[in-house]
Amino acid sequence: MVKRPFVFSHLSENYLFAEIKKKVFHFQEKNPLASLVHLGIGDTVKPIAPSVSRAMQRASRALRSEKEGIGYGEEQGLLELREKIVSRFYRGKLNADEIFISDGAKCDIGRLQLLFGSGLKIGLQDPAYPVYLEGSLLQGKQSIFFLPSSIETHFFPDLYQIGPLDLLYICHPNNPTGVAYSYEMLEHLIAYALKHQTIILFDVAYAAFIQDPKIPRSIYEIQGAEKVAIEIGSFSKMAGFSGIRLGWTVVPKSLTFENADLVWKDWKRLNATIYNGASYIAQKGGIAVLSDLGWQESQKVISIYQRNAKKLKEGFKKEGGMVFGGEHSPYLWTYYPKKNSWDLFQYFLEEKHLIVTPGRGFGRKGEHFVRISGFAHESDVDRALISLQKRGVNQDI
Amino acid sequence: MVKRPFVFSHLSENYLFAEIKKKVFHFQEKNPLASLVHLGIGDTVKPIAPSVSRAMQRASRALRSEKEGIGYGEEQGLLELREKIVSRFYRGKLNADEIFISDGAKCDIGRLQLLFGSGLKIGLQDPAYPVYLEGSLLQGKQSIFFLPSSIETHFFPDLYQIGPLDLLYICHPNNPTGVAYSYEMLEHLIAYALKHQTIILFDVAYAAFIQDPKIPRSIYEIQGAEKVAIEIGSFSKMAGFSGIRLGWTVVPKSLTFENADLVWKDWKRLNATIYNGASYIAQKGGIAVLSDLGWQESQKVISIYQRNAKKLKEGFKKEGGMVFGGEHSPYLWTYYPKKNSWDLFQYFLEEKHLIVTPGRGFGRKGEHFVRISGFAHESDVDRALISLQKRGVNQDI
Repeated sequence: MVKRPFVFSHLSENYLFAEIKKKVFHFQEKNPLASLVHLGIGDTVKPIAPSVSRAMQRASRALRSEKEGIGYGEEQGLLELREKIVSRFYRGKLNADEIFISDGAKCDIGRLQLLFGSGLKIGLQDPAYPVYLEGSLLQGKQSIFFLPSSIETHFFPDLYQIGPLDLLYICHPNNPTGVAYSYEMLEHLIAYALKHQTIILFDVAYAAFIQDPKIPRSIYEIQGAEKVAIEIGSFSKMAGFSGIRLGWTVVPKSLTFENADLVWKDWKRLNATIYNGASYIAQKGGIAVLSDLGWQESQKVISIYQRNAKKLKEGFKKEGGMVFGGEHSPYLWTYYPKKNSWDLFQYFLEEKHLIVTPGRGFGRKGEHFVRISGFAHESDVDRALISLQKRGVNQDI
Repeated sequence: MVKRPFVFSHLSENYLFAEIKKKVFHFQEKNPLASLVHLGIGDTVKPIAPSVSRAMQRASRALRSEKEGIGYGEEQGLLELREKIVSRFYRGKLNADEIFISDGAKCDIGRLQLLFGSGLKIGLQDPAYPVYLEGSLLQGKQSIFFLPSSIETHFFPDLYQIGPLDLLYICHPNNPTGVAYSYEMLEHLIAYALKHQTIILFDVAYAAFIQDPKIPRSIYEIQGAEKVAIEIGSFSKMAGFSGIRLGWTVVPKSLTFENADLVWKDWKRLNATIYNGASYIAQKGGIAVLSDLGWQESQKVISIYQRNAKKLKEGFKKEGGMVFGGEHSPYLWTYYPKKNSWDLFQYFLEEKHLIVTPGRGFGRKGEHFVRISGFAHESDVDRALISLQKRGVNQDI
């Protein structure tokens, strides 16, 4: 009889956002009249761009008559989509055959570790997106090092303090802290990686929120990164695709294993073996997102979320919170040293009718923080601000 | 520096179908005028049902105005889709919360092994769909037992000959052999599994091709199966969804680990952690497939493939092949004892301009066989038959 693998008893019962959903459900059951504002899960709420919707309608219609799209597609995803990704994000730096289309960043993060054997030293930022840790545990990885990314370190790991790692996950702009890293910080990162031959798994799911042209939008803007970094991108937050499922992973051909074999070759083999590509319709939608009209339309939606984050930042600051992020990211990371973060979650839920995400859900260094998301309708953000101001935020928290 | 995991050097350079594609490409380069008929990769060629296309158009249009579909969806997939799956395939046997919507059988086969720890004895049919073996290897599983499923055993493993296994993959109707198993054979299977507490991973990707009402279309038609079996279903071959990506996995709540914990609970947790659901548009398409009109329309397409398989079976028989399958499956499995199967592949390619799949690609017991697929346009099947008859099939093969 099959034993229950140890890892599952090791994981918390629910995935963070499933746990939040459960708590909110219980509160709402007892308080059916409370009108809650969701600033918790990082999920887009605005309709997708009209031209993108039209492109997916056309693709759906074409399936009635054409062969294209019916069968298994090109192994790495539609060439047109990969070329558009290159010309929008990686022009002159990478080729279309170094791009692999995925059904989203989370799924590729799950698959990526299978590329690298067992017994590796894996570095994770603390706090971090839970999938890095939990995906590692599910795949039986055990040598995991948590790298504090707290106020003192400007939410970046102190690279001088850490020994050689085999893999290092970095998220930029960071989820959950909402902080984007400077060119200099990322240069240090690549220098570290080149020195120790560490492979960087660089998650840019939120890069579309970077406003300052001086902040890199891709790790490949740093010289030498193509030798050490894999980059994971996503259409979810950039174009409201979280339900449509589309992303990409860059595996440069200059990234090699110790024996000089291309990592690219094995990633391609792995994808062909246990994955079968993103939906054809979603890929056609992705092509439309990256065309000029779709891009313009999608940028408008992003500016709404950016304005939301800015307003929320001001609101939470005014009420005494120490607020980080929220400029090059839809997320704020707010510090309340007196209370633990699940109590903060309950406080905001019960007293302010706001759903936020407890920082502890992202790691030990997330304690005393909450993450606040700008993915909301403007009117909901206004309601949240009114609710915050009403009787103010309790100074004991 | 990261070492190349041993597993990759252990796998053949290319995934089977990528290898075939490469060989075909080389032949076509040298013979640009040869008009090849593709009877190789098991991939649908007919347009999808009009009502299904319309449903996906509507879903794509709705994304411009509605919230539904924009964000992350229900954790296990749209409830309406899960309910429709239950009422079409599992009425009275399972509940909608035991169904998990996936982006296809291959991807879930990749994820399923993460549910079960290391050190397990895994049984695979030989020949079998390469993903069972290669997915197992990629996940570091090493105790793999090959169970001959050859002419002598009616293409079913001899369960009296095998010791207790922890996991056993069975594909019904079988890919590649094209054989569907009888009620009695599957009763033996479940009796074996109950006795040894073996978990059966039952792949029904081709169940829609079963014509005889006496042949089970699901393992849950066998009493007791819900205690030992996970079933993996797919829309790819049933409704031409291989490019659209949609499938499901059934994890019954009565399936437990040794300590009586539900496997269901951990599968749910695993999915929430490293997977994010199938595309909303594909799921809306799936709902349409299972509605009465969509089902009717999709059945018409299946009958075309069934007729193709039947015609091909007659044609190959007439030319001296010993042919199996092709009745409850789109595939024929044809035996030529004198030649090895890659040579057979080359023979059919060069002499007959037919692309078939070498049986060896599915395992050692696939040697001397080729798999022939009925997934083709009727006119291509006619061309294939003409080409077969012309000068006959060389009796030395």
